[in-house]
Amino acid sequence: MATIMRKMNMISRCESIYRTQQLDGVDLQGVHHSFILAICNNPGKSQEWLAQHICLNKSNITRHLSHLEQNGYIQRKSDDHDKRILLVYPTAKMLEILPEARKIVERWNGYIAQDFSAEELKLFHSMLDRMEMRAKELVYREEESL
Amino acid sequence: MATIMRKMNMISRCESIYRTQQLDGVDLQGVHHSFILAICNNPGKSQEWLAQHICLNKSNITRHLSHLEQNGYIQRKSDDHDKRILLVYPTAKMLEILPEARKIVERWNGYIAQDFSAEELKLFHSMLDRMEMRAKELVYREEESL
Repeated sequence: MATIMRKMNMISRCESIYRTQQLDGVDLQGVHHSFILAICNNPGKSQEWLAQHICLNKSNITRHLSHLEQNGYIQRKSDDHDKRILLVYPTAKMLEILPEARKIVERWNGYIAQDFSAEELKLFHSMLDRMEMRAKELVYREEESL
Repeated sequence: MATIMRKMNMISRCESIYRTQQLDGVDLQGVHHSFILAICNNPGKSQEWLAQHICLNKSNITRHLSHLEQNGYIQRKSDDHDKRILLVYPTAKMLEILPEARKIVERWNGYIAQDFSAEELKLFHSMLDRMEMRAKELVYREEESL
């Protein structure tokens, strides 16, 4: 039998392909949806904050933010109090696709759980919460010890 | 409350960071673990087969396979019967890290579900199976209609 993570990764990657299909004609990939939602909902946060919020390592965050900046979706500005900290803001171009990005996420979440009862859904959420807590705990403990 | 996918993506990305941390010193990222397992367990499969098995779109598969080839982890050969089809084989360098990659996957899967009872785990698996089936169905239906 496939492992828990194999199954979760497959669902997650299917979602990523779906996001890319649905935002057709836009030069963004599935993973960038997470950036759109995170940056538009939290304008002016630092790259470090985004790395933790989206849960990607520094080199991946930097790569994706560069792509978004080069394509006119974000602007980066130094923090007034500490020039080493880069703050990330959405541009009008990113804000324009936000409503569609939200709808795609909503459609996908509704679709994959469509045949779940309210009770099953509640149970599934609570199981995911427990796993997410353990996952974060281990990763951030390891990061601190590096 | 965070959506199902937000939670699953967080767990999936934590796993990816963990894989990268654990395979320290190797020029591979978390997602490459899926390639190591898929290619070593199924040597000589086509790129198209890998795309479907790992569930990534063509441009991502091509980018990751190029990285793996450039770093000496895989060899690609044309199919004898159809030169347009590229078959993927692991090199000794990839086979060497396979045992460690397997152990990392096993440790992570064991860790995140450690406080689940056997019954809870069975239920969680069956819920994931239902979602995975729906996810694949939608993505491949959309792909055919493009």
